[in-house]
Amino acid sequence: MNDFFNVTDLKTLMGYVELFSPLKTEPVSLPEALGRVLGEDVVSPENLPGFARSTMDGFAVQAASTFGASEANPAYLTINGSVRMGETPAFSITPGEAARISTGGALPDGADSVVIIEHTEAIDDTTIEVYKTVAPGQHVVQIGEDFTAGDRVLNQGQVLRPQDIGIMAAFGKESLPVHMQARVGIISTGDEIVPIGEIPDPGKIRDINSHTLSAMVSEAGGIPLRYGIVQDDAELLFTACTNALSEADMLLISGGSSVGTRDFTVEVLNRLPDARILVHGIPISPGKPTIFARAGKMPIWGLPGHVVSAMVVFRSVVRPFLDRLNGLSNYRQTVWPIPARMSRNISSAQGRTDYLRVRIVKKEDGLWAEPILGKSGLLNTMIQADGLVAIDINTEGLDKGAPVMVVPI
Amino acid sequence: MNDFFNVTDLKTLMGYVELFSPLKTEPVSLPEALGRVLGEDVVSPENLPGFARSTMDGFAVQAASTFGASEANPAYLTINGSVRMGETPAFSITPGEAARISTGGALPDGADSVVIIEHTEAIDDTTIEVYKTVAPGQHVVQIGEDFTAGDRVLNQGQVLRPQDIGIMAAFGKESLPVHMQARVGIISTGDEIVPIGEIPDPGKIRDINSHTLSAMVSEAGGIPLRYGIVQDDAELLFTACTNALSEADMLLISGGSSVGTRDFTVEVLNRLPDARILVHGIPISPGKPTIFARAGKMPIWGLPGHVVSAMVVFRSVVRPFLDRLNGLSNYRQTVWPIPARMSRNISSAQGRTDYLRVRIVKKEDGLWAEPILGKSGLLNTMIQADGLVAIDINTEGLDKGAPVMVVPI
Repeated sequence: MNDFFNVTDLKTLMGYVELFSPLKTEPVSLPEALGRVLGEDVVSPENLPGFARSTMDGFAVQAASTFGASEANPAYLTINGSVRMGETPAFSITPGEAARISTGGALPDGADSVVIIEHTEAIDDTTIEVYKTVAPGQHVVQIGEDFTAGDRVLNQGQVLRPQDIGIMAAFGKESLPVHMQARVGIISTGDEIVPIGEIPDPGKIRDINSHTLSAMVSEAGGIPLRYGIVQDDAELLFTACTNALSEADMLLISGGSSVGTRDFTVEVLNRLPDARILVHGIPISPGKPTIFARAGKMPIWGLPGHVVSAMVVFRSVVRPFLDRLNGLSNYRQTVWPIPARMSRNISSAQGRTDYLRVRIVKKEDGLWAEPILGKSGLLNTMIQADGLVAIDINTEGLDKGAPVMVVPI
Repeated sequence: MNDFFNVTDLKTLMGYVELFSPLKTEPVSLPEALGRVLGEDVVSPENLPGFARSTMDGFAVQAASTFGASEANPAYLTINGSVRMGETPAFSITPGEAARISTGGALPDGADSVVIIEHTEAIDDTTIEVYKTVAPGQHVVQIGEDFTAGDRVLNQGQVLRPQDIGIMAAFGKESLPVHMQARVGIISTGDEIVPIGEIPDPGKIRDINSHTLSAMVSEAGGIPLRYGIVQDDAELLFTACTNALSEADMLLISGGSSVGTRDFTVEVLNRLPDARILVHGIPISPGKPTIFARAGKMPIWGLPGHVVSAMVVFRSVVRPFLDRLNGLSNYRQTVWPIPARMSRNISSAQGRTDYLRVRIVKKEDGLWAEPILGKSGLLNTMIQADGLVAIDINTEGLDKGAPVMVVPI
């Protein structure tokens, strides 16, 4: 019998990302901005710092006043004042003069550097000995040295980290535009699926996918909308999809890995307005029976019913589409795959990308990826795993010691 | 002049983690559980799956009925029924018999394996040819094969991932106990600090630390409580600390890197009930002028005023204390440092741990850590960085090509 899937290669599938656009932006306050995707480029509106600041406790001086100073031959300087924190000194520094200054204090006019207190000794209330030469600019942050007005600071499409929020605070921005978070509708299908609060009759199982997929959507910065379980009935599924079309930005339908229910899902998707089935099977394992469709602006996925397969498909192919809607650019990598070496030989069928679940083991000589064996339908394998290793479509397997990249899961 | 810090080595400091206890637990619903720390061990309450299930579309059979079957010499089996999804078949399978079954269907009594549909051909409505031998158990997940009643499934102290939430759903648990999230009070001190909504007078700067530290607390799974800016006044700081003692589980006071304000902070902390200053300076750069105290059950930190120093101290030494309060165990690593190689020689002073900010650069031959140069007070260096590399206290520096671990930041 022929293979009944017309599989679409992954490169073609990933090309479809371009069909969809980032969601529009909304303003959020700084405390809400962590982990959100920046909606516009940020350019420095001012010099930072706005005045030359000391980075140490000590004395503001003209560097030339200390040239040649040493333990054996100290320089003697006259103290002409103290810099108060948060104020601009009213006096200036001339050759041979020094002013007391604390970390963060504003440099007086005339001063170009700071002698740290450890390199000085007070002779009396108005005189210090300096034991070490300072260079002009030493222990000082200059006006605009952190950012100069007009500098590009942050980029549209980057995920906001604490330091990125910090620089917005430094510029006095109390809110900033971020991309809206994609709302992702989640439907579980199948006559064998019952809500998790029920005790399943023999032959039935609880609805795991609604929960794993919701969590994966949240983890990726989306907002899950759970539509619950829909029985294998075309009208019910059509109604659920129609609801989702009006409320969500993407739709995940899990279940229906068998030929019959897959065909049935495809039929329902085809009836949606402006719908087109783009993919009907992908060359990955687990996860081959995956459907991808577009209804207007909305990407719709038919995911396998097996929880592990659905998770692998989400992580490997759905996530880039969600990232796209969420406005993520490639500017800064947010999840780093972890380089490791295979702990044993592993074989793989050619003609498909195998997603191996692995445990990462730290040894004296580095990190090793230890494959977790077991049928792909077992959630157990996912619970034990630290990440996934993709074995490429043209590779027959990996030898012990082969370098791999582990995507945390 | 002598070094005015009595620095505490990092090992001693980290030993103080044991002085504090994980917060108590609270129940949360599954959708709220993502990223929370599990409060108790979870043991499988039942067999999963609760019945033998097919993992493929095909025919449930006794494997022995297919022994020796091939393209040239197929086995002929009689179809005696179809397994309906979500139901236990009312019939059983005897030698020479087969039942139609879909992925996820319950295996009929007597059947021990599934022949996939691709290895069969229908002869008529009641007879199939089978072209390939199946082994007993093939394409079947047995009762309890994923988890057997009594198996340890999840561990107290692990961060809950989508698959961990999935297994709770599989067991029908709608809520689970997680550790409460540590509330972390954040106070910015300094006469030079103004709220971010204000335009700073000359010599003043906006309050960046409240925002960066809040975000770092949130990122680590804590709840930030911002107490705003406190001027350099002992009574005001004492009042703010006293408030925090009643509301928070940990307290961060930033600012006061100068000797005077550090002494002043120490004095206030000493006045708090049941207080003890444990650390007064740590051998790291940036971040040396760090104070650590305990007031009753609460860890209190005096962090440097420089935003970058405060961030480095938070990531390197405060975070393990926050993890402790949040209930995190070492059971499963949640943030993997990324192995890379130094892109250039870098020197480092002995006698302290240097935290280098680095950019990770992907090249043909792997990941390289590229140091970001610039004064440690510049937020700019943090904005450009992907992570931190610790250069050990006994190391004079790192050579180009040296393997390092990059902690994402």
